[in-house]
Amino acid sequence: MTSPTESRPVDYDRVFSQAIDRLHAEGRYRVFIDILRNKGMFPNARCFAGHNGPKPITVWCSNDYLAMGQHPKVIGAMEEALHDVGAGSGGTRNIGGNTHYHIDLEAELADLHGKEGALLFTSGYVSNEATLSTIAKVLPGCIIFSDELNHASMIAGIRHSGCEKRVFRHNDIAHLEELLAAEDPATPKLIAFESVYSMDGDVAPIHAICDLADKYNALTYLDEVHAVGMYGARGGGISERDDAAHRLTIIEGTLAKAIGVMGGYIAADKTIIDVIRSYAPGFIFTTSLSPVLVAGALASVRHLKASSEEREGQQASAARLKAMMREAGLPVMDSTTHIVPLMVGDPVKAKKVSDILLAEYGVYVQPINFPTVPRGTERLRFTPGPTHDEAMMRDLTRALVEIWDRMEMKLAA
Amino acid sequence: MTSPTESRPVDYDRVFSQAIDRLHAEGRYRVFIDILRNKGMFPNARCFAGHNGPKPITVWCSNDYLAMGQHPKVIGAMEEALHDVGAGSGGTRNIGGNTHYHIDLEAELADLHGKEGALLFTSGYVSNEATLSTIAKVLPGCIIFSDELNHASMIAGIRHSGCEKRVFRHNDIAHLEELLAAEDPATPKLIAFESVYSMDGDVAPIHAICDLADKYNALTYLDEVHAVGMYGARGGGISERDDAAHRLTIIEGTLAKAIGVMGGYIAADKTIIDVIRSYAPGFIFTTSLSPVLVAGALASVRHLKASSEEREGQQASAARLKAMMREAGLPVMDSTTHIVPLMVGDPVKAKKVSDILLAEYGVYVQPINFPTVPRGTERLRFTPGPTHDEAMMRDLTRALVEIWDRMEMKLAA
Repeated sequence: MTSPTESRPVDYDRVFSQAIDRLHAEGRYRVFIDILRNKGMFPNARCFAGHNGPKPITVWCSNDYLAMGQHPKVIGAMEEALHDVGAGSGGTRNIGGNTHYHIDLEAELADLHGKEGALLFTSGYVSNEATLSTIAKVLPGCIIFSDELNHASMIAGIRHSGCEKRVFRHNDIAHLEELLAAEDPATPKLIAFESVYSMDGDVAPIHAICDLADKYNALTYLDEVHAVGMYGARGGGISERDDAAHRLTIIEGTLAKAIGVMGGYIAADKTIIDVIRSYAPGFIFTTSLSPVLVAGALASVRHLKASSEEREGQQASAARLKAMMREAGLPVMDSTTHIVPLMVGDPVKAKKVSDILLAEYGVYVQPINFPTVPRGTERLRFTPGPTHDEAMMRDLTRALVEIWDRMEMKLAA
Repeated sequence: MTSPTESRPVDYDRVFSQAIDRLHAEGRYRVFIDILRNKGMFPNARCFAGHNGPKPITVWCSNDYLAMGQHPKVIGAMEEALHDVGAGSGGTRNIGGNTHYHIDLEAELADLHGKEGALLFTSGYVSNEATLSTIAKVLPGCIIFSDELNHASMIAGIRHSGCEKRVFRHNDIAHLEELLAAEDPATPKLIAFESVYSMDGDVAPIHAICDLADKYNALTYLDEVHAVGMYGARGGGISERDDAAHRLTIIEGTLAKAIGVMGGYIAADKTIIDVIRSYAPGFIFTTSLSPVLVAGALASVRHLKASSEEREGQQASAARLKAMMREAGLPVMDSTTHIVPLMVGDPVKAKKVSDILLAEYGVYVQPINFPTVPRGTERLRFTPGPTHDEAMMRDLTRALVEIWDRMEMKLAA
């Protein structure tokens, strides 16, 4: 970037163009794939960009993990709300935008996590940003202890809180304790972490972290966005599966992934919910979620509380795909969850594999590049669900082996 | 707040309870009214809280200004999308969540404002926060000139940009020029303001501000959330009405008010859209808007481009209600737009008038207290639309006069 001199006015166009040029130069300029899903036939979809008319594709990178976005109960509930109350809420939660659907869903989510209350946000991003930035402001002098792989929305919330931050090495309990022990016992502390890390598919040691929270009198904030609906007997996430929900101060989740709709939330005790509800600008000054979305999410959460079929189908699919890829010698990463990451280690190659898959095989999987993952760990990230069948997996594995071969990338023996 | 001492551990519950107690003490603890709108019969709705079963009410404070949230074209388009592609998008715009609907709506919004491109966000709040915080980071040393009454989301974006800010007095051109002239001509500058200020209903002098932007080589950012759909021959906002859209660098709008659905956006030239799309965490790391919402917004924007009936109906309603209130001696504030604010000047009284209206008259209008408006200017804010008829207005005015009388508040002679 040039440093402006007194005699020369700012050339805004040039500054903006240079910002875009930098992305091209690094091979990480993003092109969005233009698709439409076929409801009732997911993971089948249609792709528009760069083709003559829509072309059929198979989607392998959706976060609609359990295909709930097309579940008849969800679609039915949304249709009913659409006809009963209309398209949007018409206001903030405080000014005209608080509907009975919102209240019902918050009660359902509180129950899902065994908490006294819950609070809806327009997205998971906003729930993290708004909650983390607000809670630390209410606790003067608070220090936030943050896992180094925490999501961008948590990092934004922590930064916007203006409080001090200590970053601990990913899932490293010893390092976290070292950092906690170094602070004054009388300082307010909050440990912020995720249950399932979405780009690696590994899981946090929740109980061990809660043990440290107890020992050092810290609050805990757990992001369960890649686990809600998918783990635990009722879909309460890893914290339900590990019987740890009662030990956590705040559990954060999304309605846009396994729930299949859109929106985010937190669950916590009543006073904390009331504090965030009353003080978070990102909650107060925004139109509430459309009642149509809330009705769909409500039907989805209720269904997943009672049915384990989707969860079991997803786990079986993930296990099957990992096994097939390993058997074929593909560099599938070590994941203990439903996420199947395939290491490439280069942004240009990752994009090229993805491009060939789409153009020649009708397979859609997005390359994951920096800043979503660290440079040098670029990868493809597959999210097989209950509706991805064995034939699709065979086709995918064959295609990958062929491309790996063509690009002279190394397969395991 | 107590300052912690070394020997005493933090009592988190106490800190959180105190935060809530402060709100009660100031009379600004918010209770959300639990309502459901009756689609096709807006502003009629049902109220749940504190009553035995739903009670019919008339909504006077919705931001669904033109009742587009129940327009048959909007409902039809959402139903079609729901059945065609399902409930949610399933991913971020970059990873599986970019649908043909999103692309079509962005093209439609770019056209609405006469710009090369547009970009969708999950809300108007996020569009302001993400765009303002990102653009200033791309322009090193940028100073943002911000109207003192700018919305909380713009203030959040400006704060998160980390750049310097100069606040000019509300709509005060002379003050803005004074501040611009005081800075180095070679410093990047951005003027951020709104067209319609939603709590007062007054309008910014867009051309005069653009003249200053030209003179001092500053970019301009205009928030049109309370004007899009409602002003201009095609609903392009005040900037269209005043033939000023081409002079503005970035126009920001919402899909959650006059458009009747949910979501936010910006419109600007292609390079700026590409910069925000590529660098804004609040855009990149969040699930895209549900295609169901996007389809509804698309139908709504298209309808309002061609039809002026709703705009004219709203203006007629607002003029009629203002005239009736003035004639009755009620302290209606000086608004040049569709917004009808009634000054009370006290948070407890504003809440009490609102409570009586709801309990005794079936009228729902939310009291507007600090921090939404400055202390001492607490008010009721009415938003009459094309579906509020004369009989409703007569009932409302009579009710207000009776309550003003009962509470011994002053009416004009």
